[in-house]
Amino acid sequence: MKSNKWTIKNGRYVIPGSDKPVLTGYMTIENDLITYIGEVEPPFESGVEIVDGSRLLFMPGLVNTHGHAAMSLLRGYGDDLALQVWLQEKMWPMEEKFTGQDVYWGTSLSVLEMLKGGTTTFLDMYDHMDRVAEVVELSGIRSVLMRGVIGFCSEEMQNHKLAEAIEFARNWHGKADGRITTMISPHAPYTCPPDFFVKFVQAAHDLDLPMHTHMSETRREVEQNEADYGLRPVAHLEKLGMFTRPSLVAHGVHLNDEEIEILARHQVGVSHNPGSNLKLASGIARVTDLLRAGVPVSLGTDGAASNNNLDMFEEMRLAALIHKGISGDPTAIPAPEAMRMATEYGAKSIFLNNVGRLAPGMKADFIAIDIDQPHLLPHSDLLSHAVYSASAKDVEHVWINGQQVVKHGKCLTMDEEMIRHKAQESFENLLQR
Amino acid sequence: MKSNKWTIKNGRYVIPGSDKPVLTGYMTIENDLITYIGEVEPPFESGVEIVDGSRLLFMPGLVNTHGHAAMSLLRGYGDDLALQVWLQEKMWPMEEKFTGQDVYWGTSLSVLEMLKGGTTTFLDMYDHMDRVAEVVELSGIRSVLMRGVIGFCSEEMQNHKLAEAIEFARNWHGKADGRITTMISPHAPYTCPPDFFVKFVQAAHDLDLPMHTHMSETRREVEQNEADYGLRPVAHLEKLGMFTRPSLVAHGVHLNDEEIEILARHQVGVSHNPGSNLKLASGIARVTDLLRAGVPVSLGTDGAASNNNLDMFEEMRLAALIHKGISGDPTAIPAPEAMRMATEYGAKSIFLNNVGRLAPGMKADFIAIDIDQPHLLPHSDLLSHAVYSASAKDVEHVWINGQQVVKHGKCLTMDEEMIRHKAQESFENLLQR
Repeated sequence: MKSNKWTIKNGRYVIPGSDKPVLTGYMTIENDLITYIGEVEPPFESGVEIVDGSRLLFMPGLVNTHGHAAMSLLRGYGDDLALQVWLQEKMWPMEEKFTGQDVYWGTSLSVLEMLKGGTTTFLDMYDHMDRVAEVVELSGIRSVLMRGVIGFCSEEMQNHKLAEAIEFARNWHGKADGRITTMISPHAPYTCPPDFFVKFVQAAHDLDLPMHTHMSETRREVEQNEADYGLRPVAHLEKLGMFTRPSLVAHGVHLNDEEIEILARHQVGVSHNPGSNLKLASGIARVTDLLRAGVPVSLGTDGAASNNNLDMFEEMRLAALIHKGISGDPTAIPAPEAMRMATEYGAKSIFLNNVGRLAPGMKADFIAIDIDQPHLLPHSDLLSHAVYSASAKDVEHVWINGQQVVKHGKCLTMDEEMIRHKAQESFENLLQR
Repeated sequence: MKSNKWTIKNGRYVIPGSDKPVLTGYMTIENDLITYIGEVEPPFESGVEIVDGSRLLFMPGLVNTHGHAAMSLLRGYGDDLALQVWLQEKMWPMEEKFTGQDVYWGTSLSVLEMLKGGTTTFLDMYDHMDRVAEVVELSGIRSVLMRGVIGFCSEEMQNHKLAEAIEFARNWHGKADGRITTMISPHAPYTCPPDFFVKFVQAAHDLDLPMHTHMSETRREVEQNEADYGLRPVAHLEKLGMFTRPSLVAHGVHLNDEEIEILARHQVGVSHNPGSNLKLASGIARVTDLLRAGVPVSLGTDGAASNNNLDMFEEMRLAALIHKGISGDPTAIPAPEAMRMATEYGAKSIFLNNVGRLAPGMKADFIAIDIDQPHLLPHSDLLSHAVYSASAKDVEHVWINGQQVVKHGKCLTMDEEMIRHKAQESFENLLQR
């Protein structure tokens, strides 16, 4: 393959956490990697394409560390309901009817929304994962995929699901030019009995893969865990051996000091899902305490049925806003920290060491937002604007693995009209089945 | 003037609070009024233009009930700071330098952002209000304007500012084809001594105008009010006679039960500003309690320096989300209620009886959002999508007083390129003065 090398000039680049969080200058991309970024013009080489980046703010692609993409088919199907009514009368009966086709079109709808909105990597835990992987392969997005397994079933069925999860993880790890990695994912401690849960830990050891699960999303499930096992969820999962593997838990809303200390000691990541936690009234995670303790906290949208969109700019902003309001401290989660949660910490949380930052040697997963718009003026602090003022719809261009997948707001890799049609049709069919 | 009558067919119309919150059918507009809305086709009249509304969701225009438009010039200028540092080191020194020109371009930037984002009416409390009124006149937006007066000055200066506020209110009330109304607005009980505050109450009586002020935004100002006057702010303002006038207070974050009862008894509106209250870490207003008590609660963005955008969809969503998360009740502030806060209750709060709803006899202030987008599919519950999934940038068309002001996302009444340039230039000049 011929080397593809190009340089952006006049760009502004977001490097949160550095001395100069918005750098103006040059970035060079060679094939799938960023090879240079700096204020000084790189040495001229004939044949290298130069692209003008004026009027654009370049950011690392956003990393969505928890979700169920296919659930976009249930967006708006049962809002403003009590949690158990929502689950038992709305979500579960519909999800039971999901076929591989439904998962394919629901995931396509979500991936299209994520790409157009600047998300370049997403974690997905669901069923019919082969179909999800197909969408990832086709669309050009990067993802960490896993069959999420609920253990409320016969032992035979449990073993069948476990085998499916293992097979999927083994088959797809490293596929799609390395854009797909996999994890092992029992759904939650309250949906998987201990003896079943430990089989996943063993599988993760056997395959040398990290683990992911839902944990401590609601107060009720924490109380149930204590009643059933005499332990709060963190100690319970520690006892089952999960944290002997690199691990990420979703939600972590209800944690005490001791639990935060255990998570920090094992460097277990927490995917904070502020939109979903607020909408389902689960509560507000202790994010400032988690970060202070050194826990890698990243951001996730959760499924679109409890969000109700997959706009990671919104999750950044919610994270930056609600923890100020709750703590009474307007300096809590400043803009650069919110952005790192959505990028660098996100990548770290899902064990991708080469994405999440604009730096030489990193994968060329980056986005450009159009800053010449009323709500992004004046150009005072562009990093702050990206966090507090921008939205998914300000994304102009998206590159993943060095390939452009969104150009002037249009997705280059997916058939948007077909996906819109099929997603609507799938929803209507689900209602009638 | 020739009568301008037209009908939309195949539209979907949001009517929150009704039995059929999303109605499909026809809406007729005659000059500045909505004259028909219904599922049944209105009788055919020759010469009446028929417009196809497929793929669009029509909503009442959003009503932003508290803000300081010119402050958009300070967007991103000092975020993530302690409140007093932000005010004393950042906002006040810059605002002192604001000229009428700065107010003109800052307001233009904000009005442009609001129009493009579906806000058709805004309340503005600031200085150099003649320049604000000019922008309103030119842009086609509807507004309630007032000179906000801070009383930290000599008696002579106080009287000068009061006279200015009165003159402005008298001169501009009912102007711009009735799109401008005015109010009387002492800035806050903590910035206006009681003897000065009562002069505004008297002026409001003399001019028969409603009143607006900031109230109980921070815990500290409530404590200060008690220390200075022996009363909490609501009782203090009641004692000063403010509530003998139709009134709206901004923020109302720190209220006790007795204060809520007083506000309800006098039907004093509260402009809830969730984005600003979270960002400045002021706290979280008791919105569900206020609504339950019968207080008209509306939504405001506050100035862009503490928000940091003027996206009323975001305020709707924040209102619908945070009160669920705080109360632990996922049924709190359901989507139709959040939308009524941003439309119908907003209009009521600023004493406009003929805007805020899509109904015959109401002013033709309405917007259309493009629902054929990935994040707004499937078409399950479009009202819910408007609240939980949409953003300012989904607005396709805007009409105010029957005139189209935004078409396919472009503002028809303002020179966007000029405003962007002048706003940036104004900010740079302020930095150097």
